[in-house]
Amino acid sequence: MKLPLALAAAALCAAPAFAQDGRQPPPAPQSEPTPKQIADSAPAAEWTEIAPEDLMIITLAPTETGEERQIVIRLMSAPFAQGWVDNLRLLTKTRWYDGLWVYRLVDNFVVQWGDPASDPDAGETPRPLPDEIVLSPESDYVHHTGLTATVADPCADDGFDSAAICDNFAPAAGFREGWPVAWDDSSIWPIHCYGMVGVGRNESPDTGTGSELYAIIGHAPRRLDRNLALVGRVIEGMDHFAALPRGHGRMNTYKDKNTRTLVVSVRLASELEDAPRFEYLSTEGESFARMAKVFATGTNEFYTISAGDTDVCAVPLPVRRVSE
Amino acid sequence: MKLPLALAAAALCAAPAFAQDGRQPPPAPQSEPTPKQIADSAPAAEWTEIAPEDLMIITLAPTETGEERQIVIRLMSAPFAQGWVDNLRLLTKTRWYDGLWVYRLVDNFVVQWGDPASDPDAGETPRPLPDEIVLSPESDYVHHTGLTATVADPCADDGFDSAAICDNFAPAAGFREGWPVAWDDSSIWPIHCYGMVGVGRNESPDTGTGSELYAIIGHAPRRLDRNLALVGRVIEGMDHFAALPRGHGRMNTYKDKNTRTLVVSVRLASELEDAPRFEYLSTEGESFARMAKVFATGTNEFYTISAGDTDVCAVPLPVRRVSE
Repeated sequence: MKLPLALAAAALCAAPAFAQDGRQPPPAPQSEPTPKQIADSAPAAEWTEIAPEDLMIITLAPTETGEERQIVIRLMSAPFAQGWVDNLRLLTKTRWYDGLWVYRLVDNFVVQWGDPASDPDAGETPRPLPDEIVLSPESDYVHHTGLTATVADPCADDGFDSAAICDNFAPAAGFREGWPVAWDDSSIWPIHCYGMVGVGRNESPDTGTGSELYAIIGHAPRRLDRNLALVGRVIEGMDHFAALPRGHGRMNTYKDKNTRTLVVSVRLASELEDAPRFEYLSTEGESFARMAKVFATGTNEFYTISAGDTDVCAVPLPVRRVSE
Repeated sequence: MKLPLALAAAALCAAPAFAQDGRQPPPAPQSEPTPKQIADSAPAAEWTEIAPEDLMIITLAPTETGEERQIVIRLMSAPFAQGWVDNLRLLTKTRWYDGLWVYRLVDNFVVQWGDPASDPDAGETPRPLPDEIVLSPESDYVHHTGLTATVADPCADDGFDSAAICDNFAPAAGFREGWPVAWDDSSIWPIHCYGMVGVGRNESPDTGTGSELYAIIGHAPRRLDRNLALVGRVIEGMDHFAALPRGHGRMNTYKDKNTRTLVVSVRLASELEDAPRFEYLSTEGESFARMAKVFATGTNEFYTISAGDTDVCAVPLPVRRVSE
């Protein structure tokens, strides 16, 4: 048999979507399905459509070669961060973001966009915010469950269960309605995996408004959890953020302002005719649990050794366009 | 006090180097030093120079605007992967890599370079390898210590110690001579953190030669550990890899071959006049342990909540140019 391209790995684990895996021949009938196959063949009831008011569509200026660049963010679900999410919808509907900039990019950390003039040293005039902007308290970085319950330690036993994953940063981690989360005995919070979108701010007690946003473009910087508000996740077009030039000015902003990328427009899908539609694989369903289990514990012709476990931010969170 | 740029985070944790943190004013004398300050002020004896034969210097074609692009890789130390590392030096010295290509890039996963013609479907003629190329066995993906020792479980207690870190993928993880590693009772192996460089291969029993290399450009894909050989780490110029366009062809190769980036040359520092010199902060020293502890458990004016622990791939591994 002709061997295919010698590749680092069957690309099964890129988030937020499965990277293409064309290398392996289709499995023999008795083989285990791959994680991607499990997700793709999950019943329709396990794929949940994302409401159009929860989709933020960012259009960046085209590339120099004329390539269009559209990024789609799924906005955070209740009960998390709703004050900030309301601000994001307000700023979008009032067109506040239009004409602003991607002005900072730190390799293996964040891409950041919004109004660079919020830096008083930048010598630019800040764009005034709408009066209706809400200021959320620091306590809203997490959701307080109102319960106190001892969390069984998932690090204590071998093996993997997506319902509760061993985690360095919390008693347990897992998923909720397609969001990666962690929790302790009285609160639960979204976590800073690759592609997650959060709210830039100054030092405490400032909690930010949503006028400056960042997305994670490297190894999950979990130390940001519970210190900043997470308001969404990039579900399409992450390439357009992740491939931007890195900044080498102060705090890795762009020294040369011409290197900034223009944010042409931001719209909610609910404002658009023929808006794209998306659905995510329910993290409360059987297929997701099985997919995650195979991802964490499975072996195949390429990966012959499995650790039998994985970390929460490595687990794929399948999202796809709704097929019309 | 004028508030500085509202930023996602004081950039203290980008690997392989500390991202610049100019936002915070200098701490008051009684404040805790930051991780970066601890590293920068470590005594000279704790900074270990990297041997010039352990530095692989890749020159990519300049950008369209004429920006030079040089990437420096520190080659893996004994006892890990030395057969493959010997191949990398051989291929470098025989100029085998010169004129080859960055031909694949999967967002949140890998950038890959070498001879794209190794894919028989690519319709290109492969470049013959030198006769002296070594084929290493699969057992060399790890180093067998020859001991059997019960590994105390670092997940069992609270707190953080860089000497042994709670890990989803092994009984323990940590560092060895500047390398991120994990181990069990009888073996130890390097792990796939951001910036680590590994050897592309076909399916088992092929173990690759080093003619195709990849670097990790996203959340650490730890399921690759012990399945592929790790041969180095990008210590400078990671931007030049991470900001390349993503591939959208088969397996995320570049559909349009014109999108590939040319590898102009690869040299060992030992072959160059006026080669750059680098040193790394010893992971066996007191400063590193203290730096990692503050990183994992510290709080400051920006990060007011710490989980009190971190994962092995989040810990900075300071490397710097030797000051002449």
